[in-house]
Amino acid sequence: MKFAVLGGGSWATAIVKMLTENLDTVHWYMRNNTAIDHIRAEGNNPNYLSSVDLKVNSLQLSCDINEAIAGSDFLIFAIPSAFLSKELEKMTVPLANKTIFSAIKGIVPETGLIVGEHFHKTYDVPFENIGVITGPCHAEEVALERLSYLTLACADASKAELLADHLKSHYINTKISDDIIGTEYAAMLKNIYALAAGIAHGLGYGDNFQSVLMSNAIREMKRFIGKVHKMKRNINDSAYLGDLLVTGYSTFSRNRMFGNMIGKGYTVQSAMMEMNMVAEGYYATKSAHQLMARLEKKSKTPIINAVHAILYEGKNPKKTFKKLTERLD
Amino acid sequence: MKFAVLGGGSWATAIVKMLTENLDTVHWYMRNNTAIDHIRAEGNNPNYLSSVDLKVNSLQLSCDINEAIAGSDFLIFAIPSAFLSKELEKMTVPLANKTIFSAIKGIVPETGLIVGEHFHKTYDVPFENIGVITGPCHAEEVALERLSYLTLACADASKAELLADHLKSHYINTKISDDIIGTEYAAMLKNIYALAAGIAHGLGYGDNFQSVLMSNAIREMKRFIGKVHKMKRNINDSAYLGDLLVTGYSTFSRNRMFGNMIGKGYTVQSAMMEMNMVAEGYYATKSAHQLMARLEKKSKTPIINAVHAILYEGKNPKKTFKKLTERLD
Repeated sequence: MKFAVLGGGSWATAIVKMLTENLDTVHWYMRNNTAIDHIRAEGNNPNYLSSVDLKVNSLQLSCDINEAIAGSDFLIFAIPSAFLSKELEKMTVPLANKTIFSAIKGIVPETGLIVGEHFHKTYDVPFENIGVITGPCHAEEVALERLSYLTLACADASKAELLADHLKSHYINTKISDDIIGTEYAAMLKNIYALAAGIAHGLGYGDNFQSVLMSNAIREMKRFIGKVHKMKRNINDSAYLGDLLVTGYSTFSRNRMFGNMIGKGYTVQSAMMEMNMVAEGYYATKSAHQLMARLEKKSKTPIINAVHAILYEGKNPKKTFKKLTERLD
Repeated sequence: MKFAVLGGGSWATAIVKMLTENLDTVHWYMRNNTAIDHIRAEGNNPNYLSSVDLKVNSLQLSCDINEAIAGSDFLIFAIPSAFLSKELEKMTVPLANKTIFSAIKGIVPETGLIVGEHFHKTYDVPFENIGVITGPCHAEEVALERLSYLTLACADASKAELLADHLKSHYINTKISDDIIGTEYAAMLKNIYALAAGIAHGLGYGDNFQSVLMSNAIREMKRFIGKVHKMKRNINDSAYLGDLLVTGYSTFSRNRMFGNMIGKGYTVQSAMMEMNMVAEGYYATKSAHQLMARLEKKSKTPIINAVHAILYEGKNPKKTFKKLTERLD
């Protein structure tokens, strides 16, 4: 069984680090050839988690996505969702019989689908070959080898267990789940709630309100996921609540930072330019809102609606949040 | 209907501030006569939330607990649980027909009871006359008039609603509950989990782990409260999860600070001396652990057990938490 990690960012680098604790060979695809040369020469990724000493002898680096995919059975995608479609367009080798795990937190903007659904619908990958790697896990703490917990979700438990075994180490604990839809939506929704937390902070709300917001957010997340894919799940498991908290309470979260700027009065446009990037919660808000509108369940998601009103309907953040506070309890 | 607040600390001061937004007369008992003189002369509490301008004309200040109780129908106790018994010993007027709300987060050390039970068992106050004021609410943010949410719990909903009406304002939202046992245990248990979060931080665990700890803590809290008083409740409501988060994620929480010192290697004794006070989670840990032992449900509360082992059984924090991490998921 050969494993490939696709992506050159911090989360991809963290996953490569975890896998090479257990595997002698890991294929690693990234676009950036200069970074590959640097990794080969210096043993660290110059752009992300550069303090991590990579086991270069265990890496099969390539800037050709087809080479990495063709040589592997188990593909772990850690490419930001905004760039995924474009990367996949380069693909000429088939995905048949490959197992695909998504480590991507977000929505594919072109299709409005979560990543698992995107592979299923666009590339005919059967659901039993699709899985999700989810946190709560900041890559930066993996770099520091601080104890972190991952949840591996797959309809085929044996695949989730196989990957779990290869990720486990003295600083990684793992857990198995069969809820690929729910864990992936949770990973996407938490970015919206982190964005909301940022807006609240930017508007001057304090810690008392933030805890009420998070308490309402996890209840809203439960309703949302329950509408999209009803099954028995404990929304307070680490993959849902833990992931919400690690993002919502992180001052380093890009979604929170983006929201904070909006709350402080930046326009969406200027906040994006200032950050020189698009926060994933921005796309997630649109998709989540559309989905609830389609299911006629918008009344169940006041926080998502408020963020949508601010980001996409030109509504005033202060007034919108004032109205939101009356819906929360 | 006359209202009295009993206690001179920051939470008592915050409650007085909230009540005087709506009431022309509030009885306020505190032991410290010098503070009373200062409040009368300067219009602020010199020792707590001193930036708050109190409406002195609305205050009936007294250092005689019996005067405050005799003159009121509705008593709000905000005396730290460690001093409650001693204060109540001074009481000579009867509590019959008084409504008693507890704003105290903790266990009465002498009886090991939560405050509502203490009034019920020790003073024969019927449960329909007992209520709980709970957060998530740092008094410091009430002082700043930052939007905060309170839950008023009472078996008699009309009493909870009455108090809610008098606490509501442009910076206070309120909610009613009939779960006096559950909300009071939640307010007590969260101090233990904040202490655990502090120990973890002191030992060098990072944000990824903290979110897993909180995610496990809320599940443990649900099991604990479910064993003590089974009823339909949503553990993710603000009074439970919100209160856990506002304390567990606050670096100002005394329980978290105390735990942090323990994690860093201070003995229990030296941490207490250094802080010049006893964190309420210290007593709560003992009571919670005893209660689960009595109900033979200790296997359901690994976090409480770990904190108890460290604080009361002389166990090594590092080793105890290492073992705990294997129980969490």
